[in-house]
Amino acid sequence: MFGLIPKEEKFFKMFQEMGEIIIEGAKLLKGMLDDYIDPVASQKAIKEIEHRGDMKTHEIIKKLNSSFITPFDREDIYSLASALDDILDLIDASAQRFVMYNVEATTPEARELAFLILQGAETINRALHIIGGKLEPIAEHCVQVNALENEADRVCREAISRLFDEEKDPIQLIKWKEIYETLEKATDKCEDAANILESVVVKNA
Amino acid sequence: MFGLIPKEEKFFKMFQEMGEIIIEGAKLLKGMLDDYIDPVASQKAIKEIEHRGDMKTHEIIKKLNSSFITPFDREDIYSLASALDDILDLIDASAQRFVMYNVEATTPEARELAFLILQGAETINRALHIIGGKLEPIAEHCVQVNALENEADRVCREAISRLFDEEKDPIQLIKWKEIYETLEKATDKCEDAANILESVVVKNA
Amino acid sequence: MFGLIPKEEKFFKMFQEMGEIIIEGAKLLKGMLDDYIDPVASQKAIKEIEHRGDMKTHEIIKKLNSSFITPFDREDIYSLASALDDILDLIDASAQRFVMYNVEATTPEARELAFLILQGAETINRALHIIGGKLEPIAEHCVQVNALENEADRVCREAISRLFDEEKDPIQLIKWKEIYETLEKATDKCEDAANILESVVVKNA
Repeated sequence: MFGLIPKEEKFFKMFQEMGEIIIEGAKLLKGMLDDYIDPVASQKAIKEIEHRGDMKTHEIIKKLNSSFITPFDREDIYSLASALDDILDLIDASAQRFVMYNVEATTPEARELAFLILQGAETINRALHIIGGKLEPIAEHCVQVNALENEADRVCREAISRLFDEEKDPIQLIKWKEIYETLEKATDKCEDAANILESVVVKNA
Repeated sequence: MFGLIPKEEKFFKMFQEMGEIIIEGAKLLKGMLDDYIDPVASQKAIKEIEHRGDMKTHEIIKKLNSSFITPFDREDIYSLASALDDILDLIDASAQRFVMYNVEATTPEARELAFLILQGAETINRALHIIGGKLEPIAEHCVQVNALENEADRVCREAISRLFDEEKDPIQLIKWKEIYETLEKATDKCEDAANILESVVVKNA
Repeated sequence: MFGLIPKEEKFFKMFQEMGEIIIEGAKLLKGMLDDYIDPVASQKAIKEIEHRGDMKTHEIIKKLNSSFITPFDREDIYSLASALDDILDLIDASAQRFVMYNVEATTPEARELAFLILQGAETINRALHIIGGKLEPIAEHCVQVNALENEADRVCREAISRLFDEEKDPIQLIKWKEIYETLEKATDKCEDAANILESVVVKNA
């Protein structure tokens, strides 16, 4: 790729900042579900992170709309910013479900999904930190995010299967089914972001 | 912005017509939930409006595909047309749920959500009526649509929270949860339309 | 349209191969629901087809990203490939639900939806097989896919309505509601693909 001009570096830096914000959110969610001491306080902290993510996304899109030259396809920048924002939205939505449904204790599957979300966030962040340089290693990170999503999909499906086998209270079943699906959707969004990154790599190879 | 040629005015006019159709649908939904006298007849009337919206959307996309010059980014026109169509689809889907689930009476939260949808529709319509002229005031309308969506989100979350606290019949719970979520999604689509309008403003500022 | 160069034919051929894969998946789903002898084995077979579809989609996108000239808008190719992939994903997701929820017998509505999905897949495939030649007949196929989707929507709505009237076990209701909705979503994705095809026709008319 051609030498990067400062303007482009600005984009990379904003994406990297977004990557860090997502990790922060994912860490808070994992901590919330691992300890489950004060879910209301944890959810509030996650909401604040989600708000910071919103502002960073807005910053990227504003920059995009006012830039004549962009480091890669305008649309890919827009899609990537949206996909990253969606990850945080779903981390926040997951935390919200626990509070909204007065969940008293977490489950091993919920904790495993939170762990997979954090892994996904860290992998995406690693990919975002190298988009200014050689692009090839990004593809490997994308493959890993796909593997994490498959794993999350399996955990979610098994958790819901077990729910239908064991949970006799339909109201509890409704709550947990949605919680698992929301957590799983966060990893779907990591995969979306990874797919966009992968296509950027191919185009600029 | 450069002087508008007639062809461009045609696009603005079609969008404004779509804005009016959405308001009509939103008014019918609000009336349906406020009075709740003949939901079947109300739903039929909303379905007809939704059908008119479909035709208008089709007209916009046909015009787009056959136009060489467009007043703003081709893709933004397409996205905006789709987002406006989605608002009407969700107004219709909301009305359908009441009929499909044989709902006997509405709730204050459902009425509040219908009110917020109408507010959103009116704000979007106001923005659509000025896209041919100075773009700056559009941004203010967009901010307002975002505020309306946040409010709808809060109302929906609280309604569902209350549902899980009070509703002992799981089948009623399933019905109402989906009704609230469908109503709330209509305001999400207003926000999507507002975001597209905002990006148009920034690009052409 | 201008004479097609080999490179373009490659794209058409890949789309046609994808069309055939989708038909294969839709046939397996229909067979699964018609006979319902060994749902676990049927689902496995569908999963394999879905995997083949994933690889074909990947091949199309790789080709797209490395091609300088494309037979129609780059973005339409991407959207079409994604929409086709989504059809298969939902065929697979539908089959999964039957296994995951230990469904013991199918229903007439589920079989009818599987029939409509297969009809949709065959119509899409017919359209894909003529995109290299005269474009006009494609529009007729698209109209038919829209009609099939409307029919699926009606079947799904009536099935869910009946479910709420007759099913007293909320857990069964949750399972079947999701099954019908997942089957119906597969026809939505056929419609999305048809809409993209239609816009390609209009642009290149």
